[in-house]
Amino acid sequence: MPLVGVVMGSKSDAEVLQPALDTLSHLGVEYEVNIISAHRTPEKARQYGITARGRGLEVIIAAAGAAAHLPGVMASWTTLPVIGVPLAGSELKGVDALYSIVQMPAGVPVACMAIGQAGARNAAYLAAQILGLKHDAIRTAYEQYRKGLQGG
Amino acid sequence: MPLVGVVMGSKSDAEVLQPALDTLSHLGVEYEVNIISAHRTPEKARQYGITARGRGLEVIIAAAGAAAHLPGVMASWTTLPVIGVPLAGSELKGVDALYSIVQMPAGVPVACMAIGQAGARNAAYLAAQILGLKHDAIRTAYEQYRKGLQGG
Amino acid sequence: MPLVGVVMGSKSDAEVLQPALDTLSHLGVEYEVNIISAHRTPEKARQYGITARGRGLEVIIAAAGAAAHLPGVMASWTTLPVIGVPLAGSELKGVDALYSIVQMPAGVPVACMAIGQAGARNAAYLAAQILGLKHDAIRTAYEQYRKGLQGG
Amino acid sequence: MPLVGVVMGSKSDAEVLQPALDTLSHLGVEYEVNIISAHRTPEKARQYGITARGRGLEVIIAAAGAAAHLPGVMASWTTLPVIGVPLAGSELKGVDALYSIVQMPAGVPVACMAIGQAGARNAAYLAAQILGLKHDAIRTAYEQYRKGLQGG
Amino acid sequence: MPLVGVVMGSKSDAEVLQPALDTLSHLGVEYEVNIISAHRTPEKARQYGITARGRGLEVIIAAAGAAAHLPGVMASWTTLPVIGVPLAGSELKGVDALYSIVQMPAGVPVACMAIGQAGARNAAYLAAQILGLKHDAIRTAYEQYRKGLQGG
Amino acid sequence: MPLVGVVMGSKSDAEVLQPALDTLSHLGVEYEVNIISAHRTPEKARQYGITARGRGLEVIIAAAGAAAHLPGVMASWTTLPVIGVPLAGSELKGVDALYSIVQMPAGVPVACMAIGQAGARNAAYLAAQILGLKHDAIRTAYEQYRKGLQGG
Amino acid sequence: MPLVGVVMGSKSDAEVLQPALDTLSHLGVEYEVNIISAHRTPEKARQYGITARGRGLEVIIAAAGAAAHLPGVMASWTTLPVIGVPLAGSELKGVDALYSIVQMPAGVPVACMAIGQAGARNAAYLAAQILGLKHDAIRTAYEQYRKGLQGG
Amino acid sequence: MPLVGVVMGSKSDAEVLQPALDTLSHLGVEYEVNIISAHRTPEKARQYGITARGRGLEVIIAAAGAAAHLPGVMASWTTLPVIGVPLAGSELKGVDALYSIVQMPAGVPVACMAIGQAGARNAAYLAAQILGLKHDAIRTAYEQYRKGLQGG
Repeated sequence: MPLVGVVMGSKSDAEVLQPALDTLSHLGVEYEVNIISAHRTPEKARQYGITARGRGLEVIIAAAGAAAHLPGVMASWTTLPVIGVPLAGSELKGVDALYSIVQMPAGVPVACMAIGQAGARNAAYLAAQILGLKHDAIRTAYEQYRKGLQGG
Repeated sequence: MPLVGVVMGSKSDAEVLQPALDTLSHLGVEYEVNIISAHRTPEKARQYGITARGRGLEVIIAAAGAAAHLPGVMASWTTLPVIGVPLAGSELKGVDALYSIVQMPAGVPVACMAIGQAGARNAAYLAAQILGLKHDAIRTAYEQYRKGLQGG
Repeated sequence: MPLVGVVMGSKSDAEVLQPALDTLSHLGVEYEVNIISAHRTPEKARQYGITARGRGLEVIIAAAGAAAHLPGVMASWTTLPVIGVPLAGSELKGVDALYSIVQMPAGVPVACMAIGQAGARNAAYLAAQILGLKHDAIRTAYEQYRKGLQGG
Repeated sequence: MPLVGVVMGSKSDAEVLQPALDTLSHLGVEYEVNIISAHRTPEKARQYGITARGRGLEVIIAAAGAAAHLPGVMASWTTLPVIGVPLAGSELKGVDALYSIVQMPAGVPVACMAIGQAGARNAAYLAAQILGLKHDAIRTAYEQYRKGLQGG
Repeated sequence: MPLVGVVMGSKSDAEVLQPALDTLSHLGVEYEVNIISAHRTPEKARQYGITARGRGLEVIIAAAGAAAHLPGVMASWTTLPVIGVPLAGSELKGVDALYSIVQMPAGVPVACMAIGQAGARNAAYLAAQILGLKHDAIRTAYEQYRKGLQGG
Repeated sequence: MPLVGVVMGSKSDAEVLQPALDTLSHLGVEYEVNIISAHRTPEKARQYGITARGRGLEVIIAAAGAAAHLPGVMASWTTLPVIGVPLAGSELKGVDALYSIVQMPAGVPVACMAIGQAGARNAAYLAAQILGLKHDAIRTAYEQYRKGLQGG
Repeated sequence: MPLVGVVMGSKSDAEVLQPALDTLSHLGVEYEVNIISAHRTPEKARQYGITARGRGLEVIIAAAGAAAHLPGVMASWTTLPVIGVPLAGSELKGVDALYSIVQMPAGVPVACMAIGQAGARNAAYLAAQILGLKHDAIRTAYEQYRKGLQGG
Repeated sequence: MPLVGVVMGSKSDAEVLQPALDTLSHLGVEYEVNIISAHRTPEKARQYGITARGRGLEVIIAAAGAAAHLPGVMASWTTLPVIGVPLAGSELKGVDALYSIVQMPAGVPVACMAIGQAGARNAAYLAAQILGLKHDAIRTAYEQYRKGLQGG
């Protein structure tokens, strides 16, 4: 049963998010992936958010570019932690997505990551840090990864 | 029966939006005003959007600051034209709201206005231009206003 | 008889605007296209604006890059709704065009879209939303399009 | 025993962070507060990070302005989740702090919040969401808060 | 007979432009001042531009804030040199006006000055430099001013 | 005898400036070209500025990227009108050069053009506008060019 | 005999620079202060730079706002290390000064500090670090200061 | 024995930094190079900083992209002068790195260079200027280089 739900606005975002999926796999974190648009399929976004906790998810990773409302919309429909990854697809190179994701109003936070692939990978690492508070194997896996960096 | 629905994220936005309301009144356009948060009251936003056309609304004006998802969320739940007004409440002085509103993905547009009071007033004028295509009195009222500027 | 007048500053903008034209065609909206520069051919811009409503146009879509005065100049000569599309041709990648189009002074609004192709396509969708208030076939076509997205 | 460690770069940041502390209290989350500078007291930062998990902390909230290295430095010394709050103290009004906090390299994430007080409050809410995965009382408290917003 | 035509978008710009007028007076350059809006009074702008050279003007100084189309519009109707002064009235603090004025397309230049009062004063000095090529008294006055700075 | 002195910071800028030279030639304006660096060859810059008017120059066009001090330094050594062209060579894509050139302090103006090739061409057109106040053939040539645009 | 030469573009900058002077005094570094404008008094700037090393100066601190050419101009006339402090006097709040100072071309570096008072104080600390390589008392004074921070 | 310690966050930065190394060699300055990450290997960074002066280093050049904490972290562990080079690796093209490096808080300065290769080369030249105060051969070598530019 997946602990992390990864959602992205369009299939074209899959390549940038692949490092997040690889990282989750590498750390032994089960996840699911869905294509959901905050604007084109708002009902699908709502159903996803409303049912997320009940289906056993503990963290949601939402990636989007341009106006990038997906992480915030997801956060509006759930009380699970939502990690947002701003993507650089538009002419504004992700500054638009960054501002849309990070500047959430008080009450409904989104944990914003760096723009693009570094942010996608870190979304997985942050999910592991969060899940590691409760799931020992995940904490151990992330701590192993960090120890491995020391030699680097 | 109101033709224009004005929605804003919080009561604290009312002062900046007052010029929009005054302008609508001055042009003889009936309107209603609601406080709706895209993130804190997403179900209220959804109901508003889904029922808007059926209740006779023809244009929605949505104002928001910071992440400013309200105009886009409203547009996701209706096929009526949505006019977005970015507000300058955050430390980023409205650039965040501007990017969140103007950079909507293809398929679900929002008509973005200037940041702050100039944008609020222009939201009303744009609503009048749109409604004027169908409602002669509104077109005439806006054309009178523009003629009046010639002396300025 | 065209309902939408599409104007652009130079022939080199045609490629970016093609999605707008395709979208209008797909929604069954008749349109015309003209090359008009706010600065190089101001009299042509003025004539276009002054005669637009009389010739049956109901919405103007104006696209421009860099200083991007075309949408605002068009709006100064007509009381029809003007939709502005900022293009990314200059070294500033469309931020210049965005600010020039969106920051219109009170009284003479321009409905600003996203920078580049997403904005071009949305200009057509917004035109359809506006025209759909009066023309049932266009409203139905846009609603069909939006319903089609639900499956996406 | 505190679950959340709140650290800030200087005493002058205390006022902006007060809403975070109030929010944690309101949600029944125990916390501790320390003044630690990434640059002026790096050894203190190191000790704090290295001992954090052992002392029972589960989440660190780090706030800083200008170069704003504190959240990233804290994250370099611990594997606990670190939430970063960019402050607007410098002439760049927090854009500097935002970029310094959000653009962390792959491997060592920081969960970035909005600039200033909205971000400070959301750091507390995100901490509650994270802790709520494990601590039922905190989850319930946050869910109550969110339900309370529905009437708003 | 005035050699310099100073135009501004609204009466509220007069205070920022006063240093330009004082500087012109101090250098012995005759000027006239008009309130003209590129968007609200486009015909007035056109008449001004078309008749400018014939009325003896040799340089136009145009100041505007926000979308700031006035200098470019003026340049579109005349072949006289146009000096543009971006004003900081909007929430974007003049960056919008700067980009709108400086990023003119090839063929129709505007000489852009700094944002605000420094730019206003320099518009007058640049006008004096330009006029000084032909009018010895003005060149001498500006050279005297520059010599006077050496002691500073 | 050249009326316009074109200076650039390095040989690598020559390609971007070629349109300026072509435009000057096309309008029948004699010019000279020099490579001068404000920072690497400050004495050469000083000599150029001090002797410019005496050698018959009436306008200086200075192009530079990055810190882009050349136009301002040139203006500090002469009272001739200086036109500045910001180039986009650095990672900041010319925004650095734009700010360095346009934000000159009161007393010593630089007429700033658009970033890159459009700005380079307009530097030549502005030079022609300025020179045209005194040299009828140049005024006529520029007016011919502008008339030719009307057909465009 | 002063080791550090502090230069600023105008008397109005003195207040922002006072912390730099206080810091130099506190560390026992002798200094001199001069008002020099890169643009209004270029010959004074040149003489200062050319004679600096001969007069015993070992570091120059140059502060300026807006186009902020003073540090770069100073660096063009000397081979001593030049520390630049961008000031926030203009409407662009020091971003203009920052870009003008930091983006120096290869060959003639300026050591750029933070915008405003924090940068002014750090210019003094950096000067002390540099001088401390050669002057033991200054190194000791700075090391004492840093040790004192540890208790903070 | 090396006088300059060059550190970079990752091996992928080596190519951008090569000009700095070539410049140091050309000026006869001995240096060493290390890969150290402020976040992934904080203990290595600490050891490097703490031992730097004792090992004979006199200047540290630290280059980093994105959040770019390396120069500031290095400065927190040493009292030697630290020169920071912002790299353009992220989607924000080095503006993030620039702000993270230049906006250091009072007390712990970093001498910030231009973004990318120009900054890398200037880091070497600034190191030579600093070392030249004490080491005559290095001063002479840099002065020779600057004299050589005069012919350029």
